Amino acid sequence: MGSDKRLRAIVAGATGYSGQELVRLVLAHPQMELVGAFASRTFEDSPLAAVHPRLTGLTSLPCRKLDEKEIGRLQADVIFLAIPNESALELVPTLLETGAAIVDLSGAFRLQDPSLYPKYYGFEHTRPDLLQQSVYGVTEFAREELKGARLIANPGCYPTSILIPLRPLLDAGVILTDRAIICDSKSGVTGAGKGPSVTTHFAEVSENFRAYNVFHHRHTPEIAQGLHVPDNPSALIFTAHLLPINRGILSTIYVQLKPGTGRAEVLDIWRETFVHSPFVRVFEDAQLPEIKFVVNSPFVDIGLLVDEESGQAVIISALDNLLKGAASQALQNANLALGLAEGAGVETSF
Amino acid sequence: MGSDKRLRAIVAGATGYSGQELVRLVLAHPQMELVGAFASRTFEDSPLAAVHPRLTGLTSLPCRKLDEKEIGRLQADVIFLAIPNESALELVPTLLETGAAIVDLSGAFRLQDPSLYPKYYGFEHTRPDLLQQSVYGVTEFAREELKGARLIANPGCYPTSILIPLRPLLDAGVILTDRAIICDSKSGVTGAGKGPSVTTHFAEVSENFRAYNVFHHRHTPEIAQGLHVPDNPSALIFTAHLLPINRGILSTIYVQLKPGTGRAEVLDIWRETFVHSPFVRVFEDAQLPEIKFVVNSPFVDIGLLVDEESGQAVIISALDNLLKGAASQALQNANLALGLAEGAGVETSF
Amino acid sequence: MGSDKRLRAIVAGATGYSGQELVRLVLAHPQMELVGAFASRTFEDSPLAAVHPRLTGLTSLPCRKLDEKEIGRLQADVIFLAIPNESALELVPTLLETGAAIVDLSGAFRLQDPSLYPKYYGFEHTRPDLLQQSVYGVTEFAREELKGARLIANPGCYPTSILIPLRPLLDAGVILTDRAIICDSKSGVTGAGKGPSVTTHFAEVSENFRAYNVFHHRHTPEIAQGLHVPDNPSALIFTAHLLPINRGILSTIYVQLKPGTGRAEVLDIWRETFVHSPFVRVFEDAQLPEIKFVVNSPFVDIGLLVDEESGQAVIISALDNLLKGAASQALQNANLALGLAEGAGVETSF
Amino acid sequence: MGSDKRLRAIVAGATGYSGQELVRLVLAHPQMELVGAFASRTFEDSPLAAVHPRLTGLTSLPCRKLDEKEIGRLQADVIFLAIPNESALELVPTLLETGAAIVDLSGAFRLQDPSLYPKYYGFEHTRPDLLQQSVYGVTEFAREELKGARLIANPGCYPTSILIPLRPLLDAGVILTDRAIICDSKSGVTGAGKGPSVTTHFAEVSENFRAYNVFHHRHTPEIAQGLHVPDNPSALIFTAHLLPINRGILSTIYVQLKPGTGRAEVLDIWRETFVHSPFVRVFEDAQLPEIKFVVNSPFVDIGLLVDEESGQAVIISALDNLLKGAASQALQNANLALGLAEGAGVETSF
Repeated sequence: MGSDKRLRAIVAGATGYSGQELVRLVLAHPQMELVGAFASRTFEDSPLAAVHPRLTGLTSLPCRKLDEKEIGRLQADVIFLAIPNESALELVPTLLETGAAIVDLSGAFRLQDPSLYPKYYGFEHTRPDLLQQSVYGVTEFAREELKGARLIANPGCYPTSILIPLRPLLDAGVILTDRAIICDSKSGVTGAGKGPSVTTHFAEVSENFRAYNVFHHRHTPEIAQGLHVPDNPSALIFTAHLLPINRGILSTIYVQLKPGTGRAEVLDIWRETFVHSPFVRVFEDAQLPEIKFVVNSPFVDIGLLVDEESGQAVIISALDNLLKGAASQALQNANLALGLAEGAGVETSF
Repeated sequence: MGSDKRLRAIVAGATGYSGQELVRLVLAHPQMELVGAFASRTFEDSPLAAVHPRLTGLTSLPCRKLDEKEIGRLQADVIFLAIPNESALELVPTLLETGAAIVDLSGAFRLQDPSLYPKYYGFEHTRPDLLQQSVYGVTEFAREELKGARLIANPGCYPTSILIPLRPLLDAGVILTDRAIICDSKSGVTGAGKGPSVTTHFAEVSENFRAYNVFHHRHTPEIAQGLHVPDNPSALIFTAHLLPINRGILSTIYVQLKPGTGRAEVLDIWRETFVHSPFVRVFEDAQLPEIKFVVNSPFVDIGLLVDEESGQAVIISALDNLLKGAASQALQNANLALGLAEGAGVETSF
Repeated sequence: MGSDKRLRAIVAGATGYSGQELVRLVLAHPQMELVGAFASRTFEDSPLAAVHPRLTGLTSLPCRKLDEKEIGRLQADVIFLAIPNESALELVPTLLETGAAIVDLSGAFRLQDPSLYPKYYGFEHTRPDLLQQSVYGVTEFAREELKGARLIANPGCYPTSILIPLRPLLDAGVILTDRAIICDSKSGVTGAGKGPSVTTHFAEVSENFRAYNVFHHRHTPEIAQGLHVPDNPSALIFTAHLLPINRGILSTIYVQLKPGTGRAEVLDIWRETFVHSPFVRVFEDAQLPEIKFVVNSPFVDIGLLVDEESGQAVIISALDNLLKGAASQALQNANLALGLAEGAGVETSF
Repeated sequence: MGSDKRLRAIVAGATGYSGQELVRLVLAHPQMELVGAFASRTFEDSPLAAVHPRLTGLTSLPCRKLDEKEIGRLQADVIFLAIPNESALELVPTLLETGAAIVDLSGAFRLQDPSLYPKYYGFEHTRPDLLQQSVYGVTEFAREELKGARLIANPGCYPTSILIPLRPLLDAGVILTDRAIICDSKSGVTGAGKGPSVTTHFAEVSENFRAYNVFHHRHTPEIAQGLHVPDNPSALIFTAHLLPINRGILSTIYVQLKPGTGRAEVLDIWRETFVHSPFVRVFEDAQLPEIKFVVNSPFVDIGLLVDEESGQAVIISALDNLLKGAASQALQNANLALGLAEGAGVETSF
């Protein structure tokens, strides 16, 4: 591709937290140009910088009302969707006809089994055919399928934090699966979106901490699917908690290693799996991952401790839910779909 | 009063932040009994403890839909109103007929000049007669009028933090008034109420700080009225800011002392004014008031530094906006109105 | 006891976070008088209110340098020790000779097996005989032994949050113990004490979250002892995390119930166990415990969800680490040791 | 300069908060190479990434013990000093001999009048000659002097937030100076440095807010010098407050405009002054600057409200104390000193 030809990018849902990060990343991307920003609500035709004063002086683009015809006219190479699940389900079929690569940050195309949608998302899935076509984009596990992909289901923030460390270990067969894998995850508030509610009111969150959606979080079947384990509490327990911080997820994962597997073997598997993955950092020394090491960065950090005698392992992973858990992973995926270098425009985000 | 006869108290607006504190204080009051809790919204007839799980095990009272007839039937001795301004304006005339003492925590009866209501509150005041009857209850300045009062306008949180230290100095004539008194105040988020909005979303408040309503805050005329100074920026500037904390106000107040007045004279005036005021604490040493010294307490702390050469003074005051700025001051006022000791049930709140 | 005879109480370690809470509670206790406050450091003979400006106007007591002879002279009925482990170990034998009841908030007398001290506390225990005499005071499980006790080992904050919900279930035999019980606990920063360090620096804690002391926390053997399970990761895994909040612990506990046991049975066991325990609140409805429901209160809240098919249970408990996790439980214990009502002076702390 | 010749940069004081930001910025700078990182303490020869796990995978450079000979050997083009005032005073004369441009982020060379150092910094200044040579680098006001400069005194964080909006107005003569200019500033905790102390302990800062160093802050004479007003409270009052946030400063500035000057005139002056200053953003609409718009960015945002009748103005400015208040301004200054584009490596920092 010629160096002065920039690819045309659109962000739909530009007013939310993930959308704002997408806008910021695309504006700084050396090979992309932001040609359109859309939102479903209230801010119609305001400058993006009025919606997000943080962008003052960085763009004069307006934020327009979401409209598929308008989007079609812009002849984008890539369309990022950071919109509600049902809006994405409705919009994607039409947008696919434009030929653009679509990176959908909602959950609308993440679960291969359509029967899970009524239970976990509250709607019947109308396009099970597209569920089969969509590429589930934990980038590090899907690079081949991502090349040239047109419909990419960008993973959930919690699932990314769990699949990155766990899946290589399950693939390598070093984890006992006759008891539940326990994923105790904690997330900052931006994971709940920007819509105001009592549960995101500062005075309800600050100096508080709580579990939510125990046994029923919609990320549970997504994690089970990614790990190839059954979606039931005998195999996998996922508990989400709300941290009084803006951004970041830390997952504490409890597994039983098979006899003969210790910390060194796990580190070997991770090192080998991620040797060409610049955004996965394996913590090999005593230091465990912490949220502050990854906030405002595209990295997911993974580390672990093992009780070598019993084989009990505690895995710790950390990422920024708006970046590796959303926008920067979306950019990794878009880059691969469009034939760019995976890290283009991603490195600059820290 | 016989020791086993408890006065009957009602809290209307029991689901908000101030209302919750009122409920907590009345439940612990040695001479009051909570006979009714009301709210305008959603929670109708739920147990109070379901609305505020913090109260689990402490009361079995339901939270009922606000209804003046229902309130009338309960034959209360005191009714606390922690409801919106316009609801208070509508409700108070009827409630006064019950003979109960009414402590209104809204702004509906605070400003003596009815013409200020359209500008600052957005409505015409329909009962200017009651504005003349209501007692503006900064307790420490109104003990005589509070005895037996039936309609008490409980002061705003910002005004209390400013009037307590400043009014005695203006009364004593030690402050130059030919230049603006500048009140730079900072408040925690509960001051904005419990209704969810983008401006109280955790991710908009945390790690942020901002000024708001500059030159236009509705507490400005209330402060001017309390200080007996004109309501214009040549005389008084009040700037409110939002702190990323739950509770507490700190006001930094800039005044020019008259020649001959220094720090010692100000401390003398304060000491004398508040000698019988257990909830005003004068900081006489190097330590200045801080928000954490007063949070969850009924105190307002005041201190100052003076540049003795120029007479420039920086006064610092701090209080808990939900207690001395709302509920515990309401209790001081109710106690006086009902003939109880001013501090009854107030001391236990720290 | 005559109503005007107050018991004489001493707080040693009055400058720390737990010590400050003890001072506050004792000052408000209807049957206790604070006759001495001591600290090991820097603040010698300053007024307590200069050390803790929060106490301004509430006490004129000085804070004196810790000295056992001085303590002896004060003829206290009860001595609260909120001092380092090794200081407590050194001081307790002498203090016992005064005849006072000693409530030790350190870990010096918590573990019955002296051989655990070198590993977990870094010192040889010099008085294994006293380990046998001391009463381990999770109040709700030790009321009989606490009556008249002279040496009370006040439990750790994390252990209290875990033993309260779990021990009745293990005693009732409804939990499978052939796999690890997993306790994923999260605590506010005051749990780490007041000594400044990089790890408690605001900028290292705020907007961060991290695990610490995985597999090696000194509360692990205390929990194992309290549950009567082996102190190894095959039986019990305890992981501590640091929350960016001041106070509060929430523990998420993963256990496998035996066939035939569901949520209803667990609630029955809890209800029956704690029927006479005013400071344990069983959450029986959908609402799970959260930290903000218990902060600044003497309660520990417990609740759970069960996957009835698999028997997997997630138990949630919450308490204030400085109150039920330290000072208010110490007061419950002191009350029982001295023949007072368990809740005297405890109810007023919320 | 040839595109593949990178300038050699050193960061001394790489373990502090500003030092970490400098390292991050230099590592990402397209025309600089980080050839050395030094610190005075504890971390000698550890990898930088062990000191700052956030840098894991981004650099293999060690962090070495500060040593002027070692620094000399590295033949740096630019040396950033983020070290204590007295260390900088001691080191600078020697380092100047290396011919490198020195950007000193301490206060050692900021005040032109050496007699102010004993009062505000607690030491006699030993090199008043260098005070005359040093360029005080609020970049936007010193571009000509910065070109080729060898000793740059990088401004304080508070002064930058105040001088940027105020100095153009004083230069234009639109502010009344017969009364005090009042600067009420609020800063996040990283402004206090990384050294642990009780005052930066999370539990002392969180849910708190306080004023400090009233009338005595060492930034006061720096602001007075930059504004060309007398350093006394009749002319200038500066009050610093500590916000419970990690980063960011917001200054609320009260001035009286001269008759004939209103909001429009001030905006005109600012627009004209900063037309070629990409990192100063003038807020011309109703939206006022807030801290969250600038955190993690190199911008300083300025805005104001004016009571047009009285001429009273409230100016609001905001910046990130570690970036425009320290590291990114240092980079602007280094770029100009070395003949690079002012914004090189600065734009990438947001």
